[in-house]
Amino acid sequence: MRVLRIAMVQMNPTVGDLNGNVHRIVEWIGEARKAQADLIVFPELAITGYLPEDLLFKRQFVNDNLRALKEVVRACRGLVAVVGYVARRGQTQSKVLQLSSDTGDRQPLYNAAALIANCKIVGTCHKGYVSNDSDERRYFRSGQQPPLLVINGMRIGVLIGEGLWRSEESAQAQVAAGAEVMITLNASPFQIGKSRSRERSLRTWARKNGVIASVVNMIGGHDELVFDGNSLILDQSGHVIARGRAFKEELLMADVSLDAVRRRGGVGGRKSGLPKKTISTVDRLLVKLPTTKGKRAHIISRVAGPLEEVEEIYQALVLAVKDYVRKNGFTRVVIGVSGGVDSALTAVIAADALGASNVFGIFMPSPYTSHESDADARQLVQNLGIELSVIPIALTFESYRQSLAPAFGQRSTDLTEENLQARIRGNILMAMSNKFGHLVLTTGNKSELGVGYSTLYGDMAGGFAVIKDVSKTMVYELARFRNAQGPSPVIPTGTVDRPPTAELKPDQKDEDTLPPYRVLDPILQAYVEEDRSLDEIVAAGFDRATVARVVRMVDTNEFKRRQAPIGVKITPRAFGKDRRMPITNGYRSIEE
Amino acid sequence: MRVLRIAMVQMNPTVGDLNGNVHRIVEWIGEARKAQADLIVFPELAITGYLPEDLLFKRQFVNDNLRALKEVVRACRGLVAVVGYVARRGQTQSKVLQLSSDTGDRQPLYNAAALIANCKIVGTCHKGYVSNDSDERRYFRSGQQPPLLVINGMRIGVLIGEGLWRSEESAQAQVAAGAEVMITLNASPFQIGKSRSRERSLRTWARKNGVIASVVNMIGGHDELVFDGNSLILDQSGHVIARGRAFKEELLMADVSLDAVRRRGGVGGRKSGLPKKTISTVDRLLVKLPTTKGKRAHIISRVAGPLEEVEEIYQALVLAVKDYVRKNGFTRVVIGVSGGVDSALTAVIAADALGASNVFGIFMPSPYTSHESDADARQLVQNLGIELSVIPIALTFESYRQSLAPAFGQRSTDLTEENLQARIRGNILMAMSNKFGHLVLTTGNKSELGVGYSTLYGDMAGGFAVIKDVSKTMVYELARFRNAQGPSPVIPTGTVDRPPTAELKPDQKDEDTLPPYRVLDPILQAYVEEDRSLDEIVAAGFDRATVARVVRMVDTNEFKRRQAPIGVKITPRAFGKDRRMPITNGYRSIEE
Repeated sequence: MRVLRIAMVQMNPTVGDLNGNVHRIVEWIGEARKAQADLIVFPELAITGYLPEDLLFKRQFVNDNLRALKEVVRACRGLVAVVGYVARRGQTQSKVLQLSSDTGDRQPLYNAAALIANCKIVGTCHKGYVSNDSDERRYFRSGQQPPLLVINGMRIGVLIGEGLWRSEESAQAQVAAGAEVMITLNASPFQIGKSRSRERSLRTWARKNGVIASVVNMIGGHDELVFDGNSLILDQSGHVIARGRAFKEELLMADVSLDAVRRRGGVGGRKSGLPKKTISTVDRLLVKLPTTKGKRAHIISRVAGPLEEVEEIYQALVLAVKDYVRKNGFTRVVIGVSGGVDSALTAVIAADALGASNVFGIFMPSPYTSHESDADARQLVQNLGIELSVIPIALTFESYRQSLAPAFGQRSTDLTEENLQARIRGNILMAMSNKFGHLVLTTGNKSELGVGYSTLYGDMAGGFAVIKDVSKTMVYELARFRNAQGPSPVIPTGTVDRPPTAELKPDQKDEDTLPPYRVLDPILQAYVEEDRSLDEIVAAGFDRATVARVVRMVDTNEFKRRQAPIGVKITPRAFGKDRRMPITNGYRSIEE
Repeated sequence: MRVLRIAMVQMNPTVGDLNGNVHRIVEWIGEARKAQADLIVFPELAITGYLPEDLLFKRQFVNDNLRALKEVVRACRGLVAVVGYVARRGQTQSKVLQLSSDTGDRQPLYNAAALIANCKIVGTCHKGYVSNDSDERRYFRSGQQPPLLVINGMRIGVLIGEGLWRSEESAQAQVAAGAEVMITLNASPFQIGKSRSRERSLRTWARKNGVIASVVNMIGGHDELVFDGNSLILDQSGHVIARGRAFKEELLMADVSLDAVRRRGGVGGRKSGLPKKTISTVDRLLVKLPTTKGKRAHIISRVAGPLEEVEEIYQALVLAVKDYVRKNGFTRVVIGVSGGVDSALTAVIAADALGASNVFGIFMPSPYTSHESDADARQLVQNLGIELSVIPIALTFESYRQSLAPAFGQRSTDLTEENLQARIRGNILMAMSNKFGHLVLTTGNKSELGVGYSTLYGDMAGGFAVIKDVSKTMVYELARFRNAQGPSPVIPTGTVDRPPTAELKPDQKDEDTLPPYRVLDPILQAYVEEDRSLDEIVAAGFDRATVARVVRMVDTNEFKRRQAPIGVKITPRAFGKDRRMPITNGYRSIEE
């Protein structure tokens, strides 16, 4: 029986916290050794976290990451570890850890994995296909063909990133060179539906190649991104041997039998269609481990059940909030609760993430606030068990109006006064933040942000925008999902059922200004997430004037989005780093 | 005499305004034809403006850009035009203008130039070295070897971007293939000292290769960037034949004699060190124009004098403001004037850019505002001849304090109250903007923004941050420079001479919180612009504790900068797209 015991660490690193990350890595290596694992695998860039961005331009940071790797190397007694880190050009094998003191040009960097056996780096693997989704091409070069790791005769291919199921040539070359197990190190951010499609692609790949396939993905929130874990090992027929839990840090262990791969035949001799020369570029790194044959019991792999879509989104938001707060040194958050569904959902997510005692609600009524909103805001706070302060804004609003009266002259009331109210609320939340050190969570959704139905420095003021990438339609779905989790709804039913309103002037409704959300949201999705043209969206069944109006609102509100706080990405294209529009933009897809 | 008459258009396109840009391009082609030019050259991406960013992901935008190119092609009777546009893969020669109706994956794009002769596209040139400074790699692939354009036997090499003086192989291949003139299309943003280094590099290249060298650069402001023009033609000895004016749109004409290049010998037969195969990849596009020999008078090229450094920076800021305001559909701006030097400089720049009648000053005194500040603010406004509103903030400040008192309890006054004052001012400026449709210009400098000595949603509130990339030291230099331009100083001498203060509490001075600017600014430059480590900065002669404090302030204020309005880049690394730091960042270069 040729059995490889793999430990996969679905870890949650903090970007830049080299000491903290290494400390955890060393702990897991100890655990894996105790469990007699042959091989322990960490996610992509485990040492630095994903992605350190321009920290990578600091020579000292890259040096510190190499020093951190050294500590990991020392811990790898009696097993093989594959650890993501940042490599410099010209630093292979024995020179991996050579620090740079060069003061000249930036040296080329690689998104790399160190292959460590018995406290020695035996090789490195550079990421081959550097995607630009997270600006990786700003920092990393594409690497050469990675080697094959041969542990006690068991042949293991290693790749970084999503190359495996993109059928990259280097994966094929490793298979042709005899890989029996393929291991991929990932930092693959959550996105609706992505874990399922990742598993499908991996299954197709494993079946087609008759090779055991695995992916180790990180978890945790980092700025706009949240990583979902869902690490996987599939056997050579595509059956799940192990699946990590979504959004949970854990050490996933599995025994994989390589004999089955053998019996399917063809290892080494398999026809890959690749030129012999390509296959011959695959180096073999031979590693000898103390054999444990017969000494250890078989490990039963854990196969976590995959989550349903709405639950997956909800958990993504919870973990993102938890990690943004924790990793930035905060404990508590403050939220303006209005009685509306956006702030209610945000408050519930925050309470689930941080505990009710760490969430503070501020209700800031104006003369336009309805009794229903007042009652619902108070009911929500009571259901959640969070603390509430009520700070009315009428007095301050009046003092602004007085101060501005001479400058405004005879001009009539307009959007200015609505924005002023929103900005007073923003200031109050920021004052609470300044005074008590709480982080302000903003409550705007993607639909609003798309069409600019929000006030810069008003309801957009804060440090982290929890539902920034969640459409209003999905906000309702999430609210209903969460309400169904307990014996009684935590978000008051009035909040969910009443028509949405900003309550910044008498009898205001969102639909006075915007198309109904069931119309708006699909138009926004087509225009923002899918880059559809006006004609294409109309052809899909929408009214031309409505589409034109929405497109125009999206285009002219780029300046607001540019100053918005960051928030959690859950769609293929969030407002943020995913979508980079010029503010100065003379392009009109609509004939005017 | 083999004389080529070149017209170079130092144009100011608006990003995305395809119709507007093409309209201007066609007008210039008409002018060039009237002046009997053989060749007219436009900057990089002249049709779309630089850079359309994610507009490039919209298939319709790329199609519209191809349609726009068609209009240009029709205008090119009797001359050759080289025009920057966006090309799709697979669209060469006759198929250049084929639109895509594919609904599948994004098709690869190139940053390209159409080579148009007699109303026909005879070839295309793709940018070879795609730099990632402006995220170009997010959009464009690297192109193949560009062809050689042969007009009536005169051999012209064409390149896009800065490849020429980076000694790119494709430039060398064109020279080896016989190029007598090299033409480069640029969209090279202004940066202190860059126009001089560009000229030096071009001179070195021209001399070394014995070839006439030229660069056509655009002018104008676009979001964070401002383009400086300074287009150039150098003869084969590196002497300036023509130099465009800095920051001015113009058609630059020159007659270049190719006989001199011939006499230096070696065309075609020159030893390039390149393999013959590389040289043979250079296509030759033969173009016949009606010969004008003897029919036209020699044109005297214009050689504009280069600007001094401080003047160049000042003009960069003026043009950036003018274009941001104009291209975004504004006419007027509003500025909070405090009596300090930052707001004074911003107001003067705005008045120079837009005219005094389009600038509105708002003075917003508090009980902490000094008589000197009051007097200086009023004096400035009077010197400039701009309109002033005075809106005191004490009343509103008091109403906030009252409203917040129950929540604040016994907590003592701190930074919260300072920020509140700044935010009231921010709200007042935004209210003026909302009511009258003026753009708010913010007045914060780079030193403040670096260490976070500014209030989010307060003095940071506005649409465009004029001196965002200008250190406090440089603010003073610019103020003195501008004051020296007239018979009497426009910025009151008190404003320039008094120690800087935020006036948010009694007797406050910047130096209570920050190191003196003559210490702070070089530390910031080393840390932010040069990525120096703490040790390196200390080694350069600064106090360790001071450096550590500054570094810490820079690191912990990333969240503020991320929500700052965009502003003009003038250094190698501005806060904005140039510097992409994670907000969640566990890296501490200082041992704590």
